[in-house]
Amino acid sequence: MVVVMSPEATEEDIARVVSRVEGVGGEAFVSRGMSRTIIGLVGDIESFHHLNLRTLGGVADVHRISDPFKLVSRQHHAQRSTVWVGQPGRQVPVGPDSFTLIAGPCAVESPEQTVEAARMAQSAGATILRGGAFKPRTSPYAFQGLGERGLEILASVREATGMPFVTEVVDSRDVELVASHADMLQIGTRHMANFGLLQAVGEAGKPVLLKRGMSATIEEWLMAAEYIAQRGLLDIVLCESGIRTFEPSTRNTLDLSSVPVVQATTHLPIIVDPSHSAGRKDLVVPLASGAIGVGADGIVVDVHPKPELALCDGPQALDGTELRDLAKAVRRLPPVLGRVSAATVTRQG
Amino acid sequence: MVVVMSPEATEEDIARVVSRVEGVGGEAFVSRGMSRTIIGLVGDIESFHHLNLRTLGGVADVHRISDPFKLVSRQHHAQRSTVWVGQPGRQVPVGPDSFTLIAGPCAVESPEQTVEAARMAQSAGATILRGGAFKPRTSPYAFQGLGERGLEILASVREATGMPFVTEVVDSRDVELVASHADMLQIGTRHMANFGLLQAVGEAGKPVLLKRGMSATIEEWLMAAEYIAQRGLLDIVLCESGIRTFEPSTRNTLDLSSVPVVQATTHLPIIVDPSHSAGRKDLVVPLASGAIGVGADGIVVDVHPKPELALCDGPQALDGTELRDLAKAVRRLPPVLGRVSAATVTRQG
Amino acid sequence: MVVVMSPEATEEDIARVVSRVEGVGGEAFVSRGMSRTIIGLVGDIESFHHLNLRTLGGVADVHRISDPFKLVSRQHHAQRSTVWVGQPGRQVPVGPDSFTLIAGPCAVESPEQTVEAARMAQSAGATILRGGAFKPRTSPYAFQGLGERGLEILASVREATGMPFVTEVVDSRDVELVASHADMLQIGTRHMANFGLLQAVGEAGKPVLLKRGMSATIEEWLMAAEYIAQRGLLDIVLCESGIRTFEPSTRNTLDLSSVPVVQATTHLPIIVDPSHSAGRKDLVVPLASGAIGVGADGIVVDVHPKPELALCDGPQALDGTELRDLAKAVRRLPPVLGRVSAATVTRQG
Amino acid sequence: MVVVMSPEATEEDIARVVSRVEGVGGEAFVSRGMSRTIIGLVGDIESFHHLNLRTLGGVADVHRISDPFKLVSRQHHAQRSTVWVGQPGRQVPVGPDSFTLIAGPCAVESPEQTVEAARMAQSAGATILRGGAFKPRTSPYAFQGLGERGLEILASVREATGMPFVTEVVDSRDVELVASHADMLQIGTRHMANFGLLQAVGEAGKPVLLKRGMSATIEEWLMAAEYIAQRGLLDIVLCESGIRTFEPSTRNTLDLSSVPVVQATTHLPIIVDPSHSAGRKDLVVPLASGAIGVGADGIVVDVHPKPELALCDGPQALDGTELRDLAKAVRRLPPVLGRVSAATVTRQG
Repeated sequence: MVVVMSPEATEEDIARVVSRVEGVGGEAFVSRGMSRTIIGLVGDIESFHHLNLRTLGGVADVHRISDPFKLVSRQHHAQRSTVWVGQPGRQVPVGPDSFTLIAGPCAVESPEQTVEAARMAQSAGATILRGGAFKPRTSPYAFQGLGERGLEILASVREATGMPFVTEVVDSRDVELVASHADMLQIGTRHMANFGLLQAVGEAGKPVLLKRGMSATIEEWLMAAEYIAQRGLLDIVLCESGIRTFEPSTRNTLDLSSVPVVQATTHLPIIVDPSHSAGRKDLVVPLASGAIGVGADGIVVDVHPKPELALCDGPQALDGTELRDLAKAVRRLPPVLGRVSAATVTRQG
Repeated sequence: MVVVMSPEATEEDIARVVSRVEGVGGEAFVSRGMSRTIIGLVGDIESFHHLNLRTLGGVADVHRISDPFKLVSRQHHAQRSTVWVGQPGRQVPVGPDSFTLIAGPCAVESPEQTVEAARMAQSAGATILRGGAFKPRTSPYAFQGLGERGLEILASVREATGMPFVTEVVDSRDVELVASHADMLQIGTRHMANFGLLQAVGEAGKPVLLKRGMSATIEEWLMAAEYIAQRGLLDIVLCESGIRTFEPSTRNTLDLSSVPVVQATTHLPIIVDPSHSAGRKDLVVPLASGAIGVGADGIVVDVHPKPELALCDGPQALDGTELRDLAKAVRRLPPVLGRVSAATVTRQG
Repeated sequence: MVVVMSPEATEEDIARVVSRVEGVGGEAFVSRGMSRTIIGLVGDIESFHHLNLRTLGGVADVHRISDPFKLVSRQHHAQRSTVWVGQPGRQVPVGPDSFTLIAGPCAVESPEQTVEAARMAQSAGATILRGGAFKPRTSPYAFQGLGERGLEILASVREATGMPFVTEVVDSRDVELVASHADMLQIGTRHMANFGLLQAVGEAGKPVLLKRGMSATIEEWLMAAEYIAQRGLLDIVLCESGIRTFEPSTRNTLDLSSVPVVQATTHLPIIVDPSHSAGRKDLVVPLASGAIGVGADGIVVDVHPKPELALCDGPQALDGTELRDLAKAVRRLPPVLGRVSAATVTRQG
Repeated sequence: MVVVMSPEATEEDIARVVSRVEGVGGEAFVSRGMSRTIIGLVGDIESFHHLNLRTLGGVADVHRISDPFKLVSRQHHAQRSTVWVGQPGRQVPVGPDSFTLIAGPCAVESPEQTVEAARMAQSAGATILRGGAFKPRTSPYAFQGLGERGLEILASVREATGMPFVTEVVDSRDVELVASHADMLQIGTRHMANFGLLQAVGEAGKPVLLKRGMSATIEEWLMAAEYIAQRGLLDIVLCESGIRTFEPSTRNTLDLSSVPVVQATTHLPIIVDPSHSAGRKDLVVPLASGAIGVGADGIVVDVHPKPELALCDGPQALDGTELRDLAKAVRRLPPVLGRVSAATVTRQG
């Protein structure tokens, strides 16, 4: 940590900072410049936070130097992690060596629609099914999902297809229920900073798919992962799904730069959601190919057998031609970049 | 609603839209331009939403024309509302005729600190105490609040000072507990789109202070209010507390334009939080004066007897001189704009 | 400046940084922490910039500590400046003791429209006329201004009313022409980072009104002022006119926090443009009052005798009732905040 | 165009809109809903703009339906264009069938540095050299480029290597000079809305590389291209180089979604600049691969023989290993997506 003193700071002000830092067992190195003095702090960061140095007289600014997250940091865990999803014996990977396609309907509407979407997904190369049972909707008058009935449908489709499924949990009261059915719990963009929910899924024993909040910095996103990790769970997959900007032609602006930034900073896998970020299906295949190019460990896309009848986000769901184009991209691009399809990987042991 | 057809749309495409709209009991008015056709829809908006018109062949775009919120809209409720906070017989207003100062510590740390902060607030003209018992913190390693013990402290300070209090609730599992102590429930910026929590506070029977999400449009914020209203509660006070932008000199960018926009659109009162938006105390008094100037119905500010010892957000808490400056602004500016201090108002009957 | 070494940095890496810094005459203070080393640099900042320290092995980050602007900084010029506008003997101030209203039509369309708008402005308390002769328009098919003829109209209206005028210059080739007519040159939001134009107006000998670029940080804005100052001109008035965000209900988001931030950082005066930031006239009076509250040194607003016939930005121009409300706010609020109307001030000597 | 009336609009208000529209030769179709009336306008859009409909009584909103640009629109020019750069007989393409690598130093510093960077670029597969002679810098105290001497160096390197070059022009006074040396004129991100400069390059007779303004919407960017096209030049290549957001880990946020959006809307080619958007070289190769994946027609990257000695943007310049990785991506990925390297294409005739 570095404390920058204001030009008017007195010797007394400087001495006060040094004394506080030493009072909690730290060391303070004073560098006197022509117009300002800076003080480098060495020791336990957490104890420095409690000193409220920014409120002291003569202090102009305090810069943090090191990352605030620990368990998810790549600093002490250089090898990138693989997260395995599904029941023992039929687990599929999300990680640095493979490329994973997660696909399914935005919302579970019926057993028929769900199984049909799952078969479409599977034929395009998907290894994990996605589908919403609890839906966070902007309007209280919109379809809110089938709830527990939706989870049961997803479980039956898992039986039929062999695909493990990921589904969103939106309330801490539902975590136990959802975890009893699902293979992976999704934290949606609106709940990335719902810390009680993060702690609850961190204790539920299932892998977590953590979407980036639409106004979250990468650092805040990794701190959300740290909340989960701090409860004992490290099977976390991050999902970039766009940030809010001034550009109106897409729902959100997909920040593909986050993929290499995240991979340099944390050991956790990261995938990309081109469907929800764009909000329009004509962009899904190009953005999926872009995500593969940039080095993502997978993607998650919406598919629906009849998008025009979808109860949720129909305009972004793929079918027919687009799905075939997606399948082609998923099959051809990752090998050029040194990855195998996750569909070809099985866990040993 | 207006459907814009693409230049390549066929007569068949147009007929399909008209037929779908008429199929749910609506009317469709077709306007044929030189390069495009547009179709105006009249009837029940909700039923049109389910048609997924955007997915039909030949449709380029669909524009919504009317506001998506109803209960909180000013359209059918022209008179601006006043929300009364506190126990019967000693309620204080937040509304269009008065100016309300809400103040207190960011986090409740001890009975002494809380009562001292409350007395500071009261002497500056505050009529409602604020204080956090459950704190949403970016880091899992930071102070998370005293929880239930904090609520008890706030209740005892209410006894000592006569001030009703508002406190944040961050998890739907805590709503009942918090509502049993507090006079007003705060939904924080990170939970504005936590729809389960909004529904829970909408049923808890206490007034709600609803902060704007830091990446929420005004329309989304009013839809969050609609979620609460739809559960039967209209005693909602909105609170502008800054939006996320690229400017780094303040924590968030306080969007004071939202005050007149909101007042033109909804009948609900709106206040401003200059402390959390700025994150630095030298800006609090100017921004508070700006909020009064722009016509806000009140403000909420952090005060702390010893900011340098605060366990949360010390750098933005007022004390001493700044608090006296704030008191002066709150006393002198609102009367010039035709408002009385809320401290001088008591509810009749 | 502070250099933060990466955890993997070697002693050799550290020595290389120290040696480079000392090579240009600076001093380097090394602070060794448990996981990282930081190096504080003291000396001439500009010479450090040329070292490209960020490209050296083992360097994780480089933090700048002091402000990059000098001539416009308040650090060595604590007293806030007043800029005087107009011909000797009839100059009007923009500065910390007064409140200045600048008003006029967005675009000069005809002598009649301009003189009528100027009289409206003057009766509302304006001391400086604004009006565009060269208009930067998003579409090449929109009205682009009257050019030199517009400048002549403005000059004749100055004769008729006694008001000095400010007008925008959009191309370095026009600076001489515009400066030969105008009392103050405006740099618009699209040209804040047009450095050649900044340098040209810095040499033209007339005061400058420098609008904030719609995506400029406050620091970048002050660096633009530094470009002008570096050419010898310090008569610069800054103008906040909104930044680009995701919120669609206003054209831009007016960042009123910039007013106290700028006043703490630079000695230059700062005014606010509520008309162009909002883009809608119902918000102009509330935002003008908010600007007064937050401590701005003045405002600039669009007025037009017949907004429905305006060739540019009609929807934001004030007339009739709104203008009377504005006049009332400008007359009543500044005195409460310790300012006199600029209309009552004349320059001595 | 669609005019939305407010709920309180009278019959007279509606009649006034209809009469104005018919007065300029348009047609107005009135659709009366339960709470609102909407009016569809058919006819010449430009003439409607001059009506200022938004200022009329009873008008709540006016929606534009069709794109505001014409010459660059894909609507009447379905086939995507190829722009050829260089002197007759040795022109290289930027367009839909090939993939073009443009590379070179951020700033021209010396003949040696420039020719060395050009050879590096060429060996990585580049067909066009980039290099700055006039540099727009945030600080007036930073290196501003070699000016005309820089152009001469670039011309001599063109002789030595056979590569045509693109260089930025930052002032309308310099257009003639720059166009007399360069093969392609670059409009930088700070000048995208410098309309006088756009018109000047539109008349200079050389192809233009038009970067997206860092706070420009895609529509505004295409309107900037329209400004150039309206002066008679259609040889325009668009360049996505990041937009300003709240995320601090990259200089700007690269908006790769703009690539397919632009390709659907205009016939002009679009390339991507991963160096300037990221500002850090470790992201350049992943982002370049992402740009190829998403379907860009090319990329432009900074290379420098000795990044640690660069006078401008050293931290983002590639050398050694990264450049070899880039060359590999540029060679291997485009063919999978159906494109040939621009290095293998020569213009016929």
